[in-house]
Amino acid sequence: MNGIFITVEGPEGAGKTSVLQKIGQELIRQGLNIVLTREPGGIRIAEQIREVILNKENTEMDERTEALLYAASRRQHLVEKVIPALEKGDIVLCDRFVDSSLAYQGYGRNIGMDEVWSINQFATNGIMPDMTIYFDVDIERGLNRIAKNDQREVNRLDLETLDFHKRVQEGFDLLLKKFPDRFVKIDANEDFEKVYEHALELIKKLLLERGAI
Amino acid sequence: MNGIFITVEGPEGAGKTSVLQKIGQELIRQGLNIVLTREPGGIRIAEQIREVILNKENTEMDERTEALLYAASRRQHLVEKVIPALEKGDIVLCDRFVDSSLAYQGYGRNIGMDEVWSINQFATNGIMPDMTIYFDVDIERGLNRIAKNDQREVNRLDLETLDFHKRVQEGFDLLLKKFPDRFVKIDANEDFEKVYEHALELIKKLLLERGAI
Repeated sequence: MNGIFITVEGPEGAGKTSVLQKIGQELIRQGLNIVLTREPGGIRIAEQIREVILNKENTEMDERTEALLYAASRRQHLVEKVIPALEKGDIVLCDRFVDSSLAYQGYGRNIGMDEVWSINQFATNGIMPDMTIYFDVDIERGLNRIAKNDQREVNRLDLETLDFHKRVQEGFDLLLKKFPDRFVKIDANEDFEKVYEHALELIKKLLLERGAI
Repeated sequence: MNGIFITVEGPEGAGKTSVLQKIGQELIRQGLNIVLTREPGGIRIAEQIREVILNKENTEMDERTEALLYAASRRQHLVEKVIPALEKGDIVLCDRFVDSSLAYQGYGRNIGMDEVWSINQFATNGIMPDMTIYFDVDIERGLNRIAKNDQREVNRLDLETLDFHKRVQEGFDLLLKKFPDRFVKIDANEDFEKVYEHALELIKKLLLERGAI
């Protein structure tokens, strides 16, 4: 596969989605072939799975069921959208990927990162991002940003306790140490423009290294 | 867990479901605490997952997505229905379980039995049946039985090729060799009454050994 696969990760309200959208627009403006996506990414089957995961009435959902459903949705999005784009040589910018499952289900929900890693290896056949930008933000600041965002619908994960979100952050910290070659951290407590500039710079550096620009 | 966990397996049209229902009724008549179930088993979340799996319009479903969805549905059914029953000391009779995924997705769809085993270990935490009765039936005979059954709604798996169903049968044969202590095979080409008597005898033998009758 000739394409370049970049993911963004981080806690809720870190600004990942808005920053990635603006970066996507900027790179498209520069004439690059960009696929900007997030699971379930408009993939019919992945959307159906996502509905089950995020349905606020499904309070009895077991944490392993949840992890398996995320892996299933990821698989379908990967085979229908990400892999075809990478095979065409496109640059794929994806909002969250395997690392979120490791941090949220593996660490946050105490299933164990190794176990969640194993079902995700089944889902991805080992396909991992070339670079993952971690948006590091204070949890309270992130949750405040969500609360102020009228356009964002509250989902089942948003309703988790502060303690859960702290564990997720610890999980991401472990991943940064585990995958130092792939992960880069940026300070997402800064203003939007600064975070955007920093993330864009990191992505352009990678694209230059790979001869894509 | 004090209960006894018995599963039935086999190709389509082997008569598993009808035989198991009659056995359940007979054992209840004898005063035993029986839970007769099959995935998704009336478990809300598992039903929602099942709808995604069996939806005839989901022809683009990747085989690994399918395997992950079966594991997710299995997990939820297990934690909400099977484990609580086994903890109470009940006898659980379940129509299909992990072995179906190994034979259908692992072998039939060529994902590999070991890989499908691994995601199912994640789903079950290693909980396996005390006994599995394999309903051995000639494929053509099984498919003919389905065709004659007006009450059975055709699903996405029924529409598979004969070649696929043959591979599934080969998969089951491998499982019989792999788990000889747990698997017992019965000839399901026989008439309903004979198959029923044989299966009931096997189950009663196990219940006697375990001091349940």
